[in-house]
Amino acid sequence: MEDRERHRDGLADATVVMRVAYLGTGLSGFQRQEGAETVQGRLEDALRVILRRDAVTVGAGRTDAGVHAIGQTVSFSVSEGMPSLAELQRSLAALVGPDITVVAIGLARAGFSARHDALSREYRYRVECGRVPPVFLAPYAWWAKSELDVDAMSQGAQQLLGEHDFRSFCVAESAEGQRTIRRLDRLDVMRSASLGEEYIEFLVEGNAFLHSMVRVIVGSLVEVGRGKRDPNWIGTVLAARDRSTAGPTAPAHGLTLWSVRYPDDVWIDPPR
Amino acid sequence: MEDRERHRDGLADATVVMRVAYLGTGLSGFQRQEGAETVQGRLEDALRVILRRDAVTVGAGRTDAGVHAIGQTVSFSVSEGMPSLAELQRSLAALVGPDITVVAIGLARAGFSARHDALSREYRYRVECGRVPPVFLAPYAWWAKSELDVDAMSQGAQQLLGEHDFRSFCVAESAEGQRTIRRLDRLDVMRSASLGEEYIEFLVEGNAFLHSMVRVIVGSLVEVGRGKRDPNWIGTVLAARDRSTAGPTAPAHGLTLWSVRYPDDVWIDPPR
Repeated sequence: MEDRERHRDGLADATVVMRVAYLGTGLSGFQRQEGAETVQGRLEDALRVILRRDAVTVGAGRTDAGVHAIGQTVSFSVSEGMPSLAELQRSLAALVGPDITVVAIGLARAGFSARHDALSREYRYRVECGRVPPVFLAPYAWWAKSELDVDAMSQGAQQLLGEHDFRSFCVAESAEGQRTIRRLDRLDVMRSASLGEEYIEFLVEGNAFLHSMVRVIVGSLVEVGRGKRDPNWIGTVLAARDRSTAGPTAPAHGLTLWSVRYPDDVWIDPPR
Repeated sequence: MEDRERHRDGLADATVVMRVAYLGTGLSGFQRQEGAETVQGRLEDALRVILRRDAVTVGAGRTDAGVHAIGQTVSFSVSEGMPSLAELQRSLAALVGPDITVVAIGLARAGFSARHDALSREYRYRVECGRVPPVFLAPYAWWAKSELDVDAMSQGAQQLLGEHDFRSFCVAESAEGQRTIRRLDRLDVMRSASLGEEYIEFLVEGNAFLHSMVRVIVGSLVEVGRGKRDPNWIGTVLAARDRSTAGPTAPAHGLTLWSVRYPDDVWIDPPR
C-alpha cells in the first residue's frame, strides 16, 4: 500500500480504474440520468468534489435499475494534481456509500476504457425455488415459487454457447438496427447456498451482452425448469431471432454483474 | 407432502415444531414484549388468527434485538381441530412474513419443549475485515475495519472449549444468582465468502448459552485478532469470572442462530 500513498505526479498519461460493488435495490441503474440515483451519477458527483473538476466515467456494463454488482469496472482519465489512489478510495468511500463501494482501485495505460477494452463479462443470477420465500437472500434472488429441474435447464443452456444472433434474448426495441451477434463462453446452472439458504445459480460469461440478455435467458431457462417447455425449445427460440418467442424477463434483483476481464498488458498498477 | 394435507385428528397428544428463519434487522428480538415487534409476538398473533385460540409458543433461543436466525426452533401444543401441517405453514406464511419465515414444520411427542429438549445450539457470527465496508453482507456481518489474525483467534478460541463457568462472557446483571456453567463443544474461526464478499465466520456450538455469550466471546476474540491481546488472554478472562475483564460485546447484526439439535426419539414427524 505504501507507494499508493504517495502523490503520483506525472501520471497525466494514465487512466484510473475502479472495481465497484453496489446494492442495486435503491438505485436506478448504472447510467447517469437526470433526477435519478444512479451509480455513475453518484461516482461522478463525488469525483467532482474530490478532483475539483468534471470527471467523465466509463462503466464496463450498463446495469439496469435494481441490478447489483460486485465487479463493475469504471474508468476515468487521470488529471494532474490528483490525490493518491489510496486517498481517492478513502474519499470516495466517504462520499458515495453505503450502497456503493469502491472495492479496489488501480491504474491502466492512457486511453484505456473499462467498456471497450473488456474481453468478457461475467454475470450471476440467483433463483430461489423453495416452498417458502428466502429471508436473507430476498434482496438478491428471484423466488420462482416452484421446483426447477436443473438438468433440463443445463441442457437448454448448452444450446446458447458460442457465437449467435441473440436477437430473441433482448429487449426488442433495443435490437432495432443494431448488431445483435454475441459470443457466450459459459452458461452453467448449479445448486448453491449462501447464508444458510439454497438457490440455483446461473453463471453467464460472454464477450458482451445485449439489453436484458441475461434476464431473458434466465427467464426462458426457468420456463424449461418448470417443465412448461422442452430443453430443445431454447434452440428454437434462438433460431427465431424474435423476442416474442422467448420466455419472460427475470426480475432485476436476482442479477449481479460479477466480474469483467481485461488483457494483462493494460495495467500500470492493477486494481487492488 | 400428501399425508400432511390431511387433517390430523386425535393428535391432541402432540406438539407442533417449527423451524423459523428471520431477518433480525427490524425486530426487537425473539421474546414477546408489549408494544414491540418480536418473533414470538408475531407468531403467536398469527396462530391466534389461524387456530382461533391463544397459543403459547416456546423458542429454543431467546435471540436479542437485531440478531438473525435460520434455524430457530419454536414449539406449541396441538389443539383439536387444528389445520394440517401444510395448511398451517401456508397460513403462517401469509400472516407473519416477509421478514419471518416458517422454513419447516413437524410434530413431536406430547410435552416436547423446543427449549428444554434441545441438546445443543449452533450460532454463527460473521466479521468483515476488508478495507471497505461490505455491500451485500452489510445487514449480516460486523465490519471490524481492520485486518484480523485468524490463527491467533483460533488459538484463543481453543481455551473456551469444554465445560466452564462463562460468567466473564455474559451480560453481568443476567448472571447474578444464576448458574453460569455451560459446555462449549465447538468454536471454529474460519475464512468464508458469500455473495462475492469475504468474511471471517465464527461457528459456536454448545449445550446452552448465557445472555450475549456468543457476542462477548466474539468481541473478545476480535481483540486478539486485532493484536491488542495475546491469545492466552482469553484463558485469563475465563478464569476471572468477571465480565469487566472481557472484550466488548460484538454487535447483534453479525449473529445468526444457525441450528438446534434434539434427540432423535422426540419426533412423530420431523420438521421438513
